[in-house]
Amino acid sequence: MQDRAILTRQAILTAAAGVFEERGYRAATISEILARAGVTRGALYFHFPSKEDLAEGVIREQDGRLPAAGRQCAVQQLVDTVVLHAHRLRTDPVVRAGVRLALDQQAEGLDRGGSFRRWREVGAELLELARERGELLPHVVPAETAGVLVGAFAGVQAISRSLSGYQDLPRRVSGLLRHVLPSVVIPPVLASVDLSEARGAWVQEQLTAAGAAPNPAPLT
Amino acid sequence: MQDRAILTRQAILTAAAGVFEERGYRAATISEILARAGVTRGALYFHFPSKEDLAEGVIREQDGRLPAAGRQCAVQQLVDTVVLHAHRLRTDPVVRAGVRLALDQQAEGLDRGGSFRRWREVGAELLELARERGELLPHVVPAETAGVLVGAFAGVQAISRSLSGYQDLPRRVSGLLRHVLPSVVIPPVLASVDLSEARGAWVQEQLTAAGAAPNPAPLT
Repeated sequence: MQDRAILTRQAILTAAAGVFEERGYRAATISEILARAGVTRGALYFHFPSKEDLAEGVIREQDGRLPAAGRQCAVQQLVDTVVLHAHRLRTDPVVRAGVRLALDQQAEGLDRGGSFRRWREVGAELLELARERGELLPHVVPAETAGVLVGAFAGVQAISRSLSGYQDLPRRVSGLLRHVLPSVVIPPVLASVDLSEARGAWVQEQLTAAGAAPNPAPLT
Repeated sequence: MQDRAILTRQAILTAAAGVFEERGYRAATISEILARAGVTRGALYFHFPSKEDLAEGVIREQDGRLPAAGRQCAVQQLVDTVVLHAHRLRTDPVVRAGVRLALDQQAEGLDRGGSFRRWREVGAELLELARERGELLPHVVPAETAGVLVGAFAGVQAISRSLSGYQDLPRRVSGLLRHVLPSVVIPPVLASVDLSEARGAWVQEQLTAAGAAPNPAPLT
């Protein structure tokens, strides 16, 4: 896409994220998104032919991002993926809206399962890599562990949002990882992995310092 | 309460659960609940003076139930509490509506955090009991572990609902427990605890066979 088309698309997604956040999927209207984005109706329909496409566009903005390729320790890369996502939830309104849409129980007709499946695939791939490198306990089934992590993260973030407006999210995510990883990772790896609450902000800083795009490429 | 008042209250809660399920909290109306319950407006307002009270009544129906007092192993009692809740989610529409309301992101003005806090208290109490009996690893902080379990369960059930209409919930909950308990429980206890997928249905059968009330008393 050309630069200008990318900017238009981003303006539409940001406006859509705001409207979905405030109204929920069902009550949101294209008219309100259009007014807020300040683009023509033609431009909006060019990028997103329907409300469903708009919502899926927002959901995809939070999907399966990887913080950095090629960390030596695959488990640390998995941890960094999780804590970066938590950090982006706190700092990026489009990511926040995407997660909220994926969990919007009133969003009938929207394929909300796709987001969970994509995150599970990212997790399973990283866990497969960890297994190849000998970082996992022998009984681990990567797809199953990835499913547990994705489900647990979804609930932990929902409760953090409900109880603290995401203030306690880094502490809760760190707690989740400290409860799950000992069942998955061999002790020497566990001892070397950084699960601290500050890790998410640090990963984001490293990305910014390295001049990476604010939205790193999805795993393919 | 007299028998008749109890029946009326139950009819109202069942009707309210259905309407909240179909419409979500925000779009649900007292008129529709009234029509479905087949009770007088006076009776409804006597039990539940507002829509918020109705929703909190439904939420409380799924709160912190314990399957049975006095199991020898406190960790098994914790597991049974979790798997019974999962079983009730699949079989009891009021429980299902209560969980959904507690996670309804559009339910502004509703105290949704209370449900999470009550479940966390139930979990922390059972984990304290497990600690007194020597069933836990020494580093465990019961309130923190209870918070992780409540958050993780909320997400696992939401994804199971979204992807399979709760068909895979027993498998997912068993997987969650198998990923978290090894970080919490000493190995001999772990070896003796039943975490199988069939446990929830079995616990419910035992309760029914023992002639227990369908809604066992909350922990006090």
